Amino acid sequence: MGITLGANQYGKAENRLVTVSRQGSRHEIRDLTVSTALRGDLADTHLTGDNSKVLATDTQKNTLYAFAKQQPPGQIEEFGLRLARHFTGSFEQITGARVIIDEHAWQRIDDHDHSFARSGEEKRTTTVTVHNGQEWVVSGLRDLVVLKSTGSEFHGFPRDRYTTLPETTDRILATAVTARWRFAHLDVPWDKSFAEARQAMLAAFADTHSLSLQQTLYAMGKAVLEAREEIAEVRLSLPNKHHFPVDLSKFGLDNDNEVFYAADRPYGLIEGTVLREEAPEPGPAWD
Amino acid sequence: MGITLGANQYGKAENRLVTVSRQGSRHEIRDLTVSTALRGDLADTHLTGDNSKVLATDTQKNTLYAFAKQQPPGQIEEFGLRLARHFTGSFEQITGARVIIDEHAWQRIDDHDHSFARSGEEKRTTTVTVHNGQEWVVSGLRDLVVLKSTGSEFHGFPRDRYTTLPETTDRILATAVTARWRFAHLDVPWDKSFAEARQAMLAAFADTHSLSLQQTLYAMGKAVLEAREEIAEVRLSLPNKHHFPVDLSKFGLDNDNEVFYAADRPYGLIEGTVLREEAPEPGPAWD
Amino acid sequence: MGITLGANQYGKAENRLVTVSRQGSRHEIRDLTVSTALRGDLADTHLTGDNSKVLATDTQKNTLYAFAKQQPPGQIEEFGLRLARHFTGSFEQITGARVIIDEHAWQRIDDHDHSFARSGEEKRTTTVTVHNGQEWVVSGLRDLVVLKSTGSEFHGFPRDRYTTLPETTDRILATAVTARWRFAHLDVPWDKSFAEARQAMLAAFADTHSLSLQQTLYAMGKAVLEAREEIAEVRLSLPNKHHFPVDLSKFGLDNDNEVFYAADRPYGLIEGTVLREEAPEPGPAWD
Amino acid sequence: MGITLGANQYGKAENRLVTVSRQGSRHEIRDLTVSTALRGDLADTHLTGDNSKVLATDTQKNTLYAFAKQQPPGQIEEFGLRLARHFTGSFEQITGARVIIDEHAWQRIDDHDHSFARSGEEKRTTTVTVHNGQEWVVSGLRDLVVLKSTGSEFHGFPRDRYTTLPETTDRILATAVTARWRFAHLDVPWDKSFAEARQAMLAAFADTHSLSLQQTLYAMGKAVLEAREEIAEVRLSLPNKHHFPVDLSKFGLDNDNEVFYAADRPYGLIEGTVLREEAPEPGPAWD
Repeated sequence: MGITLGANQYGKAENRLVTVSRQGSRHEIRDLTVSTALRGDLADTHLTGDNSKVLATDTQKNTLYAFAKQQPPGQIEEFGLRLARHFTGSFEQITGARVIIDEHAWQRIDDHDHSFARSGEEKRTTTVTVHNGQEWVVSGLRDLVVLKSTGSEFHGFPRDRYTTLPETTDRILATAVTARWRFAHLDVPWDKSFAEARQAMLAAFADTHSLSLQQTLYAMGKAVLEAREEIAEVRLSLPNKHHFPVDLSKFGLDNDNEVFYAADRPYGLIEGTVLREEAPEPGPAWD
Repeated sequence: MGITLGANQYGKAENRLVTVSRQGSRHEIRDLTVSTALRGDLADTHLTGDNSKVLATDTQKNTLYAFAKQQPPGQIEEFGLRLARHFTGSFEQITGARVIIDEHAWQRIDDHDHSFARSGEEKRTTTVTVHNGQEWVVSGLRDLVVLKSTGSEFHGFPRDRYTTLPETTDRILATAVTARWRFAHLDVPWDKSFAEARQAMLAAFADTHSLSLQQTLYAMGKAVLEAREEIAEVRLSLPNKHHFPVDLSKFGLDNDNEVFYAADRPYGLIEGTVLREEAPEPGPAWD
Repeated sequence: MGITLGANQYGKAENRLVTVSRQGSRHEIRDLTVSTALRGDLADTHLTGDNSKVLATDTQKNTLYAFAKQQPPGQIEEFGLRLARHFTGSFEQITGARVIIDEHAWQRIDDHDHSFARSGEEKRTTTVTVHNGQEWVVSGLRDLVVLKSTGSEFHGFPRDRYTTLPETTDRILATAVTARWRFAHLDVPWDKSFAEARQAMLAAFADTHSLSLQQTLYAMGKAVLEAREEIAEVRLSLPNKHHFPVDLSKFGLDNDNEVFYAADRPYGLIEGTVLREEAPEPGPAWD
Repeated sequence: MGITLGANQYGKAENRLVTVSRQGSRHEIRDLTVSTALRGDLADTHLTGDNSKVLATDTQKNTLYAFAKQQPPGQIEEFGLRLARHFTGSFEQITGARVIIDEHAWQRIDDHDHSFARSGEEKRTTTVTVHNGQEWVVSGLRDLVVLKSTGSEFHGFPRDRYTTLPETTDRILATAVTARWRFAHLDVPWDKSFAEARQAMLAAFADTHSLSLQQTLYAMGKAVLEAREEIAEVRLSLPNKHHFPVDLSKFGLDNDNEVFYAADRPYGLIEGTVLREEAPEPGPAWD
């Protein structure tokens, strides 16, 4: 009975990197969480414990801090590419690298030179993959919580013996957006691309009169593709954060969609992909 | 050997309440997490399981949802007082009530009428206590994460055999502010009071050249007291979210406070109180 | 208008300490999370930033690691007392110390000499307070999740216009126990005391036919006091982790307390104290 | 420019289901978190908001509660298959279903008939996939935290200019195991298979003298395959939960691997696959 090693990778996860750059007394800060993973000729360490090809995860960590000093990280996609190219270009046995970066946003306190307040839980994200000399970038965001207090309906769904949900022509629609988009090429103004993709997605959420969260999902993905030609595919994961109108009739009160209970679990979970018909093959971009 | 029942309370914790109010097509939303707790003549249920004096926690939950409908919650201090007065005023055996409310902020998406995005993890908080007809309010905020990239020193501390920390005249100072302030009276414009107290605290954080986080804490508390006369006492809990400069010298690189590792644990924790000399007694406000 | 500094403390929170002791090839491990806080003559650092009396939180951290080497931590109460006595005994300006320790349990894998698996989320806890030469210890546990699938009733509660909860003579009772008990003196066999207090509390939970969670709370506290004479007071916080029977009648099915939905929020929260009539004053033990 | 809908699914996530079965006065409880997701002919709801093919996620939730009543859930793989077959077999448009189940373990309190304590954070898991009439099962566990206090080395790794990690011949090795294994067929005694796979994996962790966490990973996967012939492939994700020996030399103390700091982040992350050479194709089992 033959037993063999399959796909594998290893790296250092969730390195917390903060950089300060100083133009005179005016500071800029960047706050990143960076995970690196390497792939390649790694059978020996699995089979015999021979580590001669294992660039230590501690070294991967050191590398990203040193790289952050040698040149400011810049846009997260650039920094991810720099790191991934370094690992795959410097070590014969490393034929693939994945770098995942979350960026945490800060805003100035009253336009102060060096005082900042964290702005929200939303993270800008990127996943850079290099494999046998080819490169892929998937960017996006997560933990962007949005809500519509009207402009959402849900009806016309099939009813079987287990269906009790009433139809509604007016409900709260709320979700925490996780969106990831794949680039068709890498000649991209990353910050501008991100800002416009995000804005298009938010506008689609706000402006779509929703007949289902699926419909909103598709509209959001489509808006991203229409906003930025370099984006080939968008994947969205939208938990339906249920807001149930409270039944107040027992207390002699009506509730015209004014008072809601915001539930934790369970939640609907809508996942979908919107892509260009001519989108190039994704390769290992999403793995 | 006499065994007896001591202090006790019971209630419904973390009720998630969202309200929508509609002025024409323009919606306002409020997003609250409300916990209620009742105190009073409750020995029977503990000693014999006689529940004739136990207003069910389910009823407490229903009450707050019904109250939210009968009159919009308004400022969280007002809503807390309405609820606490109801419980203590309606049931002979209930002589005390505590209502704790967290408010979660939202902002409009592009000034849209009914679409909103969650703005940050910061919560505005209040704790209302009614006891034997007296009332206390403690308000504040938590999860406000702030950072100074310079303007912070730490030196001159005593050195014993276990002291290895180097002195520094330039470090990152970062914290997640939990602040609570006690009101001397209840004739307060709550929203305006909160906004000004918060702003004073942020300005003090930004503008204080810090020789210790304790000094910054005191400055923040003092600023709140100076901003709002109705506030008698401020309690602050400030975790020192350490940002350690990475030692890059092994790689032939200097690090002039440009590249930092943001640590999770352990963290310094600075807690302190700033109060007016003539502050009235707190009673059970902080219990 | 006089503004002044009130109560304050500072320290290093959540130091993660793991120790290995070796008797031949047989290892013992201890896994602790330790927080220290110091109190005393600390006005200067708050008012002027003079740190000459501020034993750095980094030094506090170093101290506990060094102490763990100089003598194995032993029972967590002993270790907490060692640390608190050191800080208050070594520095004139430090007149009070608080040490909080959580112990995380591990069990051997198949009685292996040096391989262990983490056993549950329950933590054994202690809080040691030294103040002006006096000492207090409060021990306990948290995150002990227990459930009774029957033997729990809830009825006879008052009904007002907001009461919709049906009475029940058979429900699931589940909670995550947080218990803390205060010792009347410190001449205590800590491990044995903990084991017997915990066991008494669990037996009381299991064996009490519950008419209210308050009744169960009181029985649990009383059992601890009866089991260990050195314990003067027990404080319990018991979230009522609701398990609601699912209404299956719409599907032509009955549900004789067989199928439940385990809810997250809101939850009932029952808090109470059971103490000896002759219990000594708590001083700052619980602050 | 053609934009089109790609892969998508929707369902109800994290349904919390607890069941009690009664044999006389002796109760058995099962505690599950169940997520369902459906796939199929779902373009309409995305493109036009026509929901006539969208079995509501609320209905999916109702279904699993009703199914739990009609027949006790049994082994989680069985329950997952029952649900997935129902959804794909009952609705023409539903051609695929995924059911993910976590099982939370409880143990009796002192062999009590109906009182239980939660035993650890480890979850037994399964993912059932049905697609166009074919069925796949992937089972496993997560949050199993294990530690070796010796028997682990790491050396012989390449050193570049960013490498500072010292070599070690004795370190703590700790990880939180996430393991998932794919079955070659479905004629499996699920509980027995799980128990033996888990035991083999634990024994391999304990007994492997580790030269790298990769080597331990491979040994654990191989042990599972050797223990159970029906398992075709094992995927493991092992965070290296670093325990760093504290440098006590500054205090005149040695530290012979006795006192450790348990770090949170960053952490090494080792991921790998071990499979039979003759393993059947996975199809969508892992998607």
